[in-house]
Amino acid sequence: MRIGIVGAGAVGLYYGARLQRASEDAHFLVRSDFDAIARSGIAIRAPDASFQLRKVNVYRTTDQIGPVDLVILGLKATSNGEIPSLIKPMVHPGTIILSMQNGLGAVPFLESQFPRNSVLGGSCFICLNRVKPGTVENFYVGRLGVTGRDQAARDAIANMFKRAGVNARAFEDMNLLQWKKLLWNIPFNGLSIAAGQVSTDVIISDPNLSRLARGLMEEVVAIASALGLVIDSKLIDRQFEMTKTMGDYRPSSLVDFQAGRSVEVEAIWGEPLRKAIAAGVDAPKLETLYRLLRIACRERDAENPVASD
Amino acid sequence: MRIGIVGAGAVGLYYGARLQRASEDAHFLVRSDFDAIARSGIAIRAPDASFQLRKVNVYRTTDQIGPVDLVILGLKATSNGEIPSLIKPMVHPGTIILSMQNGLGAVPFLESQFPRNSVLGGSCFICLNRVKPGTVENFYVGRLGVTGRDQAARDAIANMFKRAGVNARAFEDMNLLQWKKLLWNIPFNGLSIAAGQVSTDVIISDPNLSRLARGLMEEVVAIASALGLVIDSKLIDRQFEMTKTMGDYRPSSLVDFQAGRSVEVEAIWGEPLRKAIAAGVDAPKLETLYRLLRIACRERDAENPVASD
Repeated sequence: MRIGIVGAGAVGLYYGARLQRASEDAHFLVRSDFDAIARSGIAIRAPDASFQLRKVNVYRTTDQIGPVDLVILGLKATSNGEIPSLIKPMVHPGTIILSMQNGLGAVPFLESQFPRNSVLGGSCFICLNRVKPGTVENFYVGRLGVTGRDQAARDAIANMFKRAGVNARAFEDMNLLQWKKLLWNIPFNGLSIAAGQVSTDVIISDPNLSRLARGLMEEVVAIASALGLVIDSKLIDRQFEMTKTMGDYRPSSLVDFQAGRSVEVEAIWGEPLRKAIAAGVDAPKLETLYRLLRIACRERDAENPVASD
Repeated sequence: MRIGIVGAGAVGLYYGARLQRASEDAHFLVRSDFDAIARSGIAIRAPDASFQLRKVNVYRTTDQIGPVDLVILGLKATSNGEIPSLIKPMVHPGTIILSMQNGLGAVPFLESQFPRNSVLGGSCFICLNRVKPGTVENFYVGRLGVTGRDQAARDAIANMFKRAGVNARAFEDMNLLQWKKLLWNIPFNGLSIAAGQVSTDVIISDPNLSRLARGLMEEVVAIASALGLVIDSKLIDRQFEMTKTMGDYRPSSLVDFQAGRSVEVEAIWGEPLRKAIAAGVDAPKLETLYRLLRIACRERDAENPVASD
């Protein structure tokens, strides 16, 4: 399968490299890291498989990549405004578009922009850090859920990832998967910034923060429930147990925040809050966190195309 | 009246100086600013009266001050653990103790420590900044509410302040006054730190923060109501209007935070939250803010004697 991977952050590099290693025809759009990746390739350090790809197809523009069968979007949701024109040269009538973005909003947005293509959402329950250009560390293997309206497409893409050794599975209900991911992202990504730049072990071990994380998760379960999505509240305990194994992990939003990059405030906190408001569910802790994050990240989010309330 | 003023922060200096200027017999306990105040006295810059006291009675210990008729406590609530032994040399059977502290908890604590004395609470609705040792700027004249079980004492002290030109008044209900002050302190002092060190004009003008401030105020009104204290919700609008006139004011907690001093997290946010929990009132925004502030201020609050939940 000819694949165009947009974004050379941790997600794009990791999944793209695994696919190339499994003999898929991968083509990477790379900006600031172009020289480093063209010179040294991509290195993945993972508990289940560490490997290096010395030769990688890298491009500075999507025109150079041209039409592909699959576009994998590894850009942040904060780039959504520019994505349609960016990926247009790669999209032909049969192209599948897979968004690996956190939070809500990306898939409906892409469906509106590419109504004749299959748009899928990929929910990555995984711990990745891009430690330097072209090098990704994978701490927690996790899994990848692939969803979307088009059953044939989501099954095909999930199977392709499985063949590449990724713990992938197709799911019918995209919303449920996204909300299960928000169950972790909302408290841990949010508090890691709002509590003064702390890693997940601090959130777990501090009684105040861990209670607040739990309270936020309870709100997420309540919002999902109002949307008809059943999240077993036992999953909260399991998420805490899983997070304990992650050590002093810095959630991706904290990494972005500390690097001066955009934080996906609207996709991860704003859209879920607006869903809560629309469903008549009270989510005051989420609201408080969202409003504080808006301010904390305001400089970087000046170009965020998603409207605020 | 022989008065011992403990603490040479903005509150102690301002009220002590006004009393001395009105010919009260004022004696200031001063620590780090001793030399500056002994040399240059106290300067007050205020909209209603700017003045300088060149000669001020300053002391390094309360033993040197000895018994007084009135102790004015201008220390932060975070110093409560050391206050009883500190003020003991000044307290004789007839001594009135007036705590000017923010938040909840100081008066009951002092009553338990000095059961034979009249303990009063002073709620200062005022904007003060100690701009350098011995110098205080007063932006917003405001008013001082004096409360306490002992009617004769609270009337006498309120009248003494009135004679000194302070807009003071005695009130029977201490709790109502304290909660009216919390109505401002909880959102503005709290958000000024939690939103990344911003002054009040940012909280007022940013739509996210101003909505959050309003939500916190609504919770304060609800908690007070459950405690039998009626705060007219119109007061919320009036507080916003008043705060607009204050410009880029830094609330005292932000000033303390930025100077590396203790922040009264338990007195201003923790105790009110515990009152809410005890009364069965949901205050999730206050809870979120409290837990974030606990972390933000954790280093400095290590010696805080008030128990956390």
